[in-house]
Amino acid sequence: MSLKRRREDFDAIVVQKYGGSSVATPKMIRMVANRILSSLNNNSHLVVILSAMGETTDRLVDLAQGVSDHPGGREMDLLLATGEQVSVSLLGLALKEMDVPVVSLSGSQCGIRTDRGFNLARIQSIDTKRILEELKDGRVVIIPGFQGLTSDDELTTLGRGGSDVTGAAMAAALGASVCEIYTDVDGVLSADPNMVPEALKWSTLTFKEAIEMASSGAKVLHPRATAICMAHDIPIHVRSSFHMSEGTWISGGGKVMEQAEVVGVSSDKQVAKVTLLDIPNEPGMAAKIFKDLASENISVRLIIQSSSSVDRGRITFIPDADRVGSVNILVEKWKKEGITTAGIIETEVVMISIIGSRLASTPKLISRMFNVLAAEKINIDCISSSEMRLSCVISVNRLSEAIRAIHKEFFPKVGNINNSKVG
Amino acid sequence: MSLKRRREDFDAIVVQKYGGSSVATPKMIRMVANRILSSLNNNSHLVVILSAMGETTDRLVDLAQGVSDHPGGREMDLLLATGEQVSVSLLGLALKEMDVPVVSLSGSQCGIRTDRGFNLARIQSIDTKRILEELKDGRVVIIPGFQGLTSDDELTTLGRGGSDVTGAAMAAALGASVCEIYTDVDGVLSADPNMVPEALKWSTLTFKEAIEMASSGAKVLHPRATAICMAHDIPIHVRSSFHMSEGTWISGGGKVMEQAEVVGVSSDKQVAKVTLLDIPNEPGMAAKIFKDLASENISVRLIIQSSSSVDRGRITFIPDADRVGSVNILVEKWKKEGITTAGIIETEVVMISIIGSRLASTPKLISRMFNVLAAEKINIDCISSSEMRLSCVISVNRLSEAIRAIHKEFFPKVGNINNSKVG
Repeated sequence: MSLKRRREDFDAIVVQKYGGSSVATPKMIRMVANRILSSLNNNSHLVVILSAMGETTDRLVDLAQGVSDHPGGREMDLLLATGEQVSVSLLGLALKEMDVPVVSLSGSQCGIRTDRGFNLARIQSIDTKRILEELKDGRVVIIPGFQGLTSDDELTTLGRGGSDVTGAAMAAALGASVCEIYTDVDGVLSADPNMVPEALKWSTLTFKEAIEMASSGAKVLHPRATAICMAHDIPIHVRSSFHMSEGTWISGGGKVMEQAEVVGVSSDKQVAKVTLLDIPNEPGMAAKIFKDLASENISVRLIIQSSSSVDRGRITFIPDADRVGSVNILVEKWKKEGITTAGIIETEVVMISIIGSRLASTPKLISRMFNVLAAEKINIDCISSSEMRLSCVISVNRLSEAIRAIHKEFFPKVGNINNSKVG
Repeated sequence: MSLKRRREDFDAIVVQKYGGSSVATPKMIRMVANRILSSLNNNSHLVVILSAMGETTDRLVDLAQGVSDHPGGREMDLLLATGEQVSVSLLGLALKEMDVPVVSLSGSQCGIRTDRGFNLARIQSIDTKRILEELKDGRVVIIPGFQGLTSDDELTTLGRGGSDVTGAAMAAALGASVCEIYTDVDGVLSADPNMVPEALKWSTLTFKEAIEMASSGAKVLHPRATAICMAHDIPIHVRSSFHMSEGTWISGGGKVMEQAEVVGVSSDKQVAKVTLLDIPNEPGMAAKIFKDLASENISVRLIIQSSSSVDRGRITFIPDADRVGSVNILVEKWKKEGITTAGIIETEVVMISIIGSRLASTPKLISRMFNVLAAEKINIDCISSSEMRLSCVISVNRLSEAIRAIHKEFFPKVGNINNSKVG
């Protein structure tokens, strides 16, 4: 992604992104307008990115499924883009009512150029000319998240979580002093508070920790957004839109005095487990299987090929749960081609992970996780580890006990975590 | 309005406009898609204009009123434009599902340029380049009604009924063979069937008759749309989207053998009656009053200044009911300025009209209307007549009897009216 940085004579631009739960009703939009008014006391230049109101995007998808079995392509993006256009218009009207100088831009006006990957486009560049002009004229600039325009002026959308990506890319292009992500929780927590009520809020995290937590199922912040801010060294502040307390600062982490061992426990229910049996002991079999998966665009989170003589000929992999239908079609194809005799597909599984930047260099942390699961008599189906993450696949009906037990092991004390603040 | 006509090598382009009640649900959108598929058998080049689904525009206005007491300006248009963007996207998805080559354009893509009159913009030109290219490539082109783009690329809307205007302007710019207006009634009727169940459907009408009927409150077709088709001599076909029967053809009328005396009886509840008392007998008083009304953008349907010595010093006028608040403020101003001693504002009034192209030259028709109202003992408050219309203001609680009695006088027989077909 190439982003033009044009700071010119601006002291500080703050980018604020409000999620769908923060703009779900006209009343909440008025609350956001009030918050922006008080932000203006501290920041003279404010660019605001909005998601669609509440469940709007889901409702638009439902409408599309009412006219088409497989809605997609450019018409789908034209449809979905309306959600954010509604919320930016309403916030603009609310701010005008308060006599705040403001301009709401459409997806066609905000200068974001993407590739032609409809429904899952990537930002390629941002022309900040109009935004900088509006800021210079003293206006708050409101921008619809989640969308952009191809080089031939077709509307595209960036995929779910795309408003985070818009916020980060806009912060990078404008050289913002901070990218504030407003949400309905207090910041980034050590676990999902719905599953672990005693979950703790972090005051700081590193970019890499935030990326690993999001990738392992924590609904913090889209990992693409964090990666963009990391590349451009723009600090992120994840905070609640309902009160003024500080949330979690995410940054390069250079100034953090003491790095935590484990920063979060997260779970991801959206996985399935597929085991292929009796694969011939010939070279190229695994390559063939994963080439077919790739050509169907099925991402695989984890691959295990046992090396014991008993299990030789088995391959297990963990795809996203919503791709099970496509996997099933491939299994039938592989059976016809003599690649396997049977594929066992299990959907009642879940991936549970701990995240920490020193995991790989601290074997003791890994053994503590295994000990906890063993003490709870929870079977581990598969294990995957990376530099910053250890993930285990377990049965979904043990998830609740597992996540609480692991959280208790690594976060025995109650209270928020005030590691030293960055930013 | 300057519209480029570019027929090039096209034999016939048909423009179809579907109203909000024809696309209110995904199921109805699929019905419209089926209708388009069957239209394609007769027409190789089809341009479809859509309104927003059902009550969508009202819902968007409600949202806006939830954040602002007086929503308006460019942000309001950005908001309202989403309604049609949703319906064009969904129809595009539905046609793709049926393997019909199709492209849905956004308000920014369809080439309609307007002035900068946000919320009530006027079309200035249409660049048909992209539409003609898409038609040449064999696609059905779907266009959002009601909206356009200023010369500096700001989204505008055309005001209520604007999708009719888009349909007519597009038909004119493309030199279409017909502008088909699909709606939830069978065509243009001699009266509102909710008030007069025995109302008759016309098979043909002249442009002027259709304009007068719409202007007097019949919700046929926006008079701006009819005027555009009249100027470019494009026949209009108003018909039901629920069945295949012919509706009403509206055209120049040159080929109509026998013009009907009265083509419709209509009523308009959206009026008020204002009487100003004791206006000084000095020149320039009326001019002052109507200059003030004009500067507040209050349109006045009817003005009566009595010439009798008793009533001298009174002026009565009929504004739109929704402007009564502004009129009240002006009355207070005029009292301070010594222009009047009191203003009597009545809102329980209604305007009832008969329309016919030979009204002015047929005094007998006018006396028949007065006779009917007299026989029903209905007081006439004010009378206004033009070449093609006779309007009376009466009390709203006599409306139902009045309209049925007048309709019975002019249309004693039941059954649709098959005057000779044009087009």
